[in-house]
Amino acid sequence: MRRVGIASSGLAEFSKSDSTIESLMLSSVKPIFDGTSNLSQDDIDAVLTSTNSDSKYLSNVVSELSGISPKVSHSVESLCNSGTNGIVSAYSYIASGLADVALVIGAEKSNSPGLVLEWDVSRGQYKHPIYWASMFASAHMRKFGTTMEDIAYVSAQNHNNAADNPFAYFKKMFSLDEIMQSKHLTDNLRLLDCSMPCDGAASILLASEDIIKKFTDNPIWISGIGQQSLSAGFTKNEDLACMKSNIQSSHQAYDMAKKTPDDIDVAELHDAFSICEIIELEDLGFVKPGLGSSYVRNLYETNDKKINPRGGLIGCGHPLGATGIAQTIEIFQQLQGTAKKRQIDGAKTGLVHNMSAAATSSTVLILES
Amino acid sequence: MRRVGIASSGLAEFSKSDSTIESLMLSSVKPIFDGTSNLSQDDIDAVLTSTNSDSKYLSNVVSELSGISPKVSHSVESLCNSGTNGIVSAYSYIASGLADVALVIGAEKSNSPGLVLEWDVSRGQYKHPIYWASMFASAHMRKFGTTMEDIAYVSAQNHNNAADNPFAYFKKMFSLDEIMQSKHLTDNLRLLDCSMPCDGAASILLASEDIIKKFTDNPIWISGIGQQSLSAGFTKNEDLACMKSNIQSSHQAYDMAKKTPDDIDVAELHDAFSICEIIELEDLGFVKPGLGSSYVRNLYETNDKKINPRGGLIGCGHPLGATGIAQTIEIFQQLQGTAKKRQIDGAKTGLVHNMSAAATSSTVLILES
Repeated sequence: MRRVGIASSGLAEFSKSDSTIESLMLSSVKPIFDGTSNLSQDDIDAVLTSTNSDSKYLSNVVSELSGISPKVSHSVESLCNSGTNGIVSAYSYIASGLADVALVIGAEKSNSPGLVLEWDVSRGQYKHPIYWASMFASAHMRKFGTTMEDIAYVSAQNHNNAADNPFAYFKKMFSLDEIMQSKHLTDNLRLLDCSMPCDGAASILLASEDIIKKFTDNPIWISGIGQQSLSAGFTKNEDLACMKSNIQSSHQAYDMAKKTPDDIDVAELHDAFSICEIIELEDLGFVKPGLGSSYVRNLYETNDKKINPRGGLIGCGHPLGATGIAQTIEIFQQLQGTAKKRQIDGAKTGLVHNMSAAATSSTVLILES
Repeated sequence: MRRVGIASSGLAEFSKSDSTIESLMLSSVKPIFDGTSNLSQDDIDAVLTSTNSDSKYLSNVVSELSGISPKVSHSVESLCNSGTNGIVSAYSYIASGLADVALVIGAEKSNSPGLVLEWDVSRGQYKHPIYWASMFASAHMRKFGTTMEDIAYVSAQNHNNAADNPFAYFKKMFSLDEIMQSKHLTDNLRLLDCSMPCDGAASILLASEDIIKKFTDNPIWISGIGQQSLSAGFTKNEDLACMKSNIQSSHQAYDMAKKTPDDIDVAELHDAFSICEIIELEDLGFVKPGLGSSYVRNLYETNDKKINPRGGLIGCGHPLGATGIAQTIEIFQQLQGTAKKRQIDGAKTGLVHNMSAAATSSTVLILES
């Protein structure tokens, strides 16, 4: 099987705006054409749009507006991990030989129809995602003694990290105290424990190893892929102190890449809510179960940016279909050594974790320079 | 690259009903589990839903309702060729090694939001698809002298063929005279020249050559794939007497399968409107440009079912996301020799043609027994 690498990327600032979904997408495609040597529209065999927008035929619309006439062209939707599903689909088109170069374009509006899980009545009327996060928080607190202060460290550090990210939605940092004092939305989650829906777009260019050197001297390879869906509703994750789809998808990805958690120099974790990052650190094997809280305290106290250097979903905002692509772009830049103020020195191997709907599905990617 | 084959399929009758999109999908998944030896839910690595429905996370919802916890799970949308885009995406997951077995589930409601091309103002207010079909008809009539009677033969023969298809929307045949006398919707297309939006669902099970024999002794292989998008709007197809995306995608598919049009024993062509079939026969190389009309007259006069044996979109109805899958199922059954009254004797090689939005994108698949 031929290798697939990331050649280039483009981001649009996460914000709230009057832009259409098409304009958002185009604003993240333009930097790819502006910034990639030797890339012309004719090079691109596949265009995939990842979004929860109801607009139809978007991949063709955005392709036409970008001057691209691809062979493969369609939208990909899987709620909050639409972005990494688009990347994995593009990977498979290239690895299988159906395409050499693929552009994946993720975007979302802040009023995305994907924000409320209409079909999931497993929590009664409590359909907003914060209610599942709150149930995970309760279980983790009960099992491991996790505190409201512990989870505040996640939010504080991710807002700190986002301050170095010009594309992040939040432009200000929040102190631990501000987070602790922010409005309670449930008994164990506060406003500043939540990621914010916003507008955003992110695009990424993948290419086969046969052609990628045409576009970059510094390709980053996708060496591990893990994906696992449990269900659509909330009821298949028996132990709410962990997220089973994370464990399963990370095992797949580590196996494929022949890596262990110790090999990971930098990681983007899907912190839709602050409690998620603590659980994910445990699920993905960075620490043993129960030690996520002390790990995130240490990140904050030592200002270690290894986890969510771009600021995570909490610091950057969460435009659903764009998030997984923006996460992957961060790791791409870290491994290329182009992450500027956010750079983790000497990062060679990175991990992306993107999930959906109460962790009912998860994607883990491992990237290598 | 390992081969990918079709192991099994399931259809729900095309109709108008009160069923939800989820129920429609399930009604085409059930026959696959009922009819495939040795298949269990645990075998399925990927579930893709192809639809224009606005419902989110559908692949996970339908997976959970079917008892499947797949690795890969997302929706695929590309208007009227969503179905074959789903099949090609599943092919690439299997060929690339990310999945061994993939289930593609296509469904649509008759009031699908994909029916009107809201973004395409290249024909002024005339956004309904019949207006693009009418422009193609005018150009073909002008260039080749095609007549209103010629195009009526397409509809008559496809309705004849549909009479042998228990899943078709139309249960009655229409005479040439009834078609000729049906209401004019444009100056050169009548009501019975059009396919009918309806509810419908179709599912197909793909597997790698390593595992497919577990499920069937009679797999059908996908040996050729062609896909081409020109644009989203109507303006990139300079000569309206042909459909450029058909020509390009069929060349790709013939090249990949190392076949020519003469090798094709049976074909499903996307007759969204009767004029389309005449143009497609020419674009795909079954006859030279200008000879499509005499070809379809001959099909009718000799009751030759080689083209659109299931009845085409005109006879079966057109539930957008299900159509490409239902077309592929017909060729699968023809090559398996299980097409009953519709069987083309000795068919070994078949072709599926599925397109979208004024032929702005087309997919061609070549299947072999």
